[in-house]
Amino acid sequence: MEFAADTVSTAQKTVDHVATFAFAVSGALLAVRKNYDVFGLAVLACAAAFGGGVIRDLIIAQGPPIAFVDQSYLWISLAAAAVIFVWHPPTRLTGWPLDVTDAVGLGLFCVTGTVKAYSSGLGAVPSALLGMVTAIGGGVVRDMLAGDQPGVLRWDRDLYAVPALVGASITALILHYGWYRLELSSAAAFVALVLRLLALHYHWHAPRARGSSRHRVESGEVP
Amino acid sequence: MEFAADTVSTAQKTVDHVATFAFAVSGALLAVRKNYDVFGLAVLACAAAFGGGVIRDLIIAQGPPIAFVDQSYLWISLAAAAVIFVWHPPTRLTGWPLDVTDAVGLGLFCVTGTVKAYSSGLGAVPSALLGMVTAIGGGVVRDMLAGDQPGVLRWDRDLYAVPALVGASITALILHYGWYRLELSSAAAFVALVLRLLALHYHWHAPRARGSSRHRVESGEVP
Amino acid sequence: MEFAADTVSTAQKTVDHVATFAFAVSGALLAVRKNYDVFGLAVLACAAAFGGGVIRDLIIAQGPPIAFVDQSYLWISLAAAAVIFVWHPPTRLTGWPLDVTDAVGLGLFCVTGTVKAYSSGLGAVPSALLGMVTAIGGGVVRDMLAGDQPGVLRWDRDLYAVPALVGASITALILHYGWYRLELSSAAAFVALVLRLLALHYHWHAPRARGSSRHRVESGEVP
Repeated sequence: MEFAADTVSTAQKTVDHVATFAFAVSGALLAVRKNYDVFGLAVLACAAAFGGGVIRDLIIAQGPPIAFVDQSYLWISLAAAAVIFVWHPPTRLTGWPLDVTDAVGLGLFCVTGTVKAYSSGLGAVPSALLGMVTAIGGGVVRDMLAGDQPGVLRWDRDLYAVPALVGASITALILHYGWYRLELSSAAAFVALVLRLLALHYHWHAPRARGSSRHRVESGEVP
Repeated sequence: MEFAADTVSTAQKTVDHVATFAFAVSGALLAVRKNYDVFGLAVLACAAAFGGGVIRDLIIAQGPPIAFVDQSYLWISLAAAAVIFVWHPPTRLTGWPLDVTDAVGLGLFCVTGTVKAYSSGLGAVPSALLGMVTAIGGGVVRDMLAGDQPGVLRWDRDLYAVPALVGASITALILHYGWYRLELSSAAAFVALVLRLLALHYHWHAPRARGSSRHRVESGEVP
Repeated sequence: MEFAADTVSTAQKTVDHVATFAFAVSGALLAVRKNYDVFGLAVLACAAAFGGGVIRDLIIAQGPPIAFVDQSYLWISLAAAAVIFVWHPPTRLTGWPLDVTDAVGLGLFCVTGTVKAYSSGLGAVPSALLGMVTAIGGGVVRDMLAGDQPGVLRWDRDLYAVPALVGASITALILHYGWYRLELSSAAAFVALVLRLLALHYHWHAPRARGSSRHRVESGEVP
């Protein structure tokens, strides 16, 4: 390792905690929108908060996922669920807070996921890929459990995977060249977060396959 | 370990077999309701029966999931699928048997899942959490494969996660204080099963987040 | 091991690459049909291509899934996504190419999945089961992410799990009796592929549970 493992693990954990709280809030807000009961809300909050990290930890195959070893992740997720249960915006106004908390989790997890994957011995490219999977995994699990199609796949949603991929790729480059410092990885998370917020604000969309787009317009088909 | 591993593993296996059969029946009954063919029925029976245990075994990370090492789980699930294929209630009457077999699997798996997690070295709280995940995992996998929203999340369904959590927590306490005996763990499974059946009979619901509930009533929105 | 590991791993990798490309094309074609943007298309192509193998590698529990260790799988999947993005049939004509590429992936993965499971030390029956899971896993992940019910479960779809199970079982028998040769495993893949294509061409369906079928016809219920 070119970087001090202790510093990484402390910073990693703090950032992971913040990202866990953010994703748990996003899951709880979706549960509010879906009108779940308090236990469904807690389950969806934990699923959103744990999803990406559990997938990452299963794939790097170095023992049980951190969320099942270190109880702090559980209590943080339940605290987020409790906060949203007693205090949350009206259902019709959950969209904006859900998107922003999701963006915070996305930005932070794409960096910590990449760092953890790289520390486990994966190469730079697989680490960036797994960092992106960590970042988008929680949202995919959350949306699928709630019966929605994952936002990352929908053409009518703003760019989602790209900010995570950019943040993860910057982090992988930093690690690959041995430049890892807390400031630089924070900058990578910040870039991913800002990109996602800009995508939300300006409704950045990616191009679609030409044939399907034309077909849709011609036929008026709703995909 | 404070308890005799041999006794645990024999009892664990017997109880796991019963729970596997129960969940496989629930999966097969859902397949009947959805009008699947015989192979879809077998796949859904196995998915329901294996789902929770595979998730548990992946998370405790001690080699391949038991269902892929010990063939007995496969044959039991296929036997359950065969029974339901040749003999099952009319489609409109599958609801009650499905709920009861699911409750049996839920009650038994929350105990065996907790015991297996604790035996693998996890702490008491993560073991209880993983026991609950083992118990509800099969039903979640079953419902999602069949295109239904998992019952554990739906506000209009009776309490589901709570009986599993109660049974898992009692088991974790028993293990934590070194009181583990077959009678006590059986009692924990019985408590979980009875709680779930009472929840079904009396339609116990959990409270929902106030804002969303009020909003729903005011607007007549169907969530 | 009764067979030369080197030969297996080289052939295994080549065949895995072809199957990966085929499944990635099937995912990309489904993305075209669903009118996803370019990133959703890449995500669905990778999910279809990696899904079965990642499930297999998680279950055999011998380190990180190959798709995250060996970058070739990623580039092959992205190449398939790129090809389909720039060149694909009109949306309404994606059905046939999707079915055929899916069948190619199914036939090849049921063999390589069984070989890899057997090489990892699992018995013949679990290896055949895991080979089938490897083959159908990518399609299940692809369909569920895209919000469709997995074809393997639907009674109105042609036989899907059975060709994979036949190919996996032949492979497991070959391995069990120590007859493993590239020609024989290729023949097993060919049998699975041809069975699936015949099932598609002649619309082979499996029988359904009698009660449900009768009920459906009587009531006109659409399952």
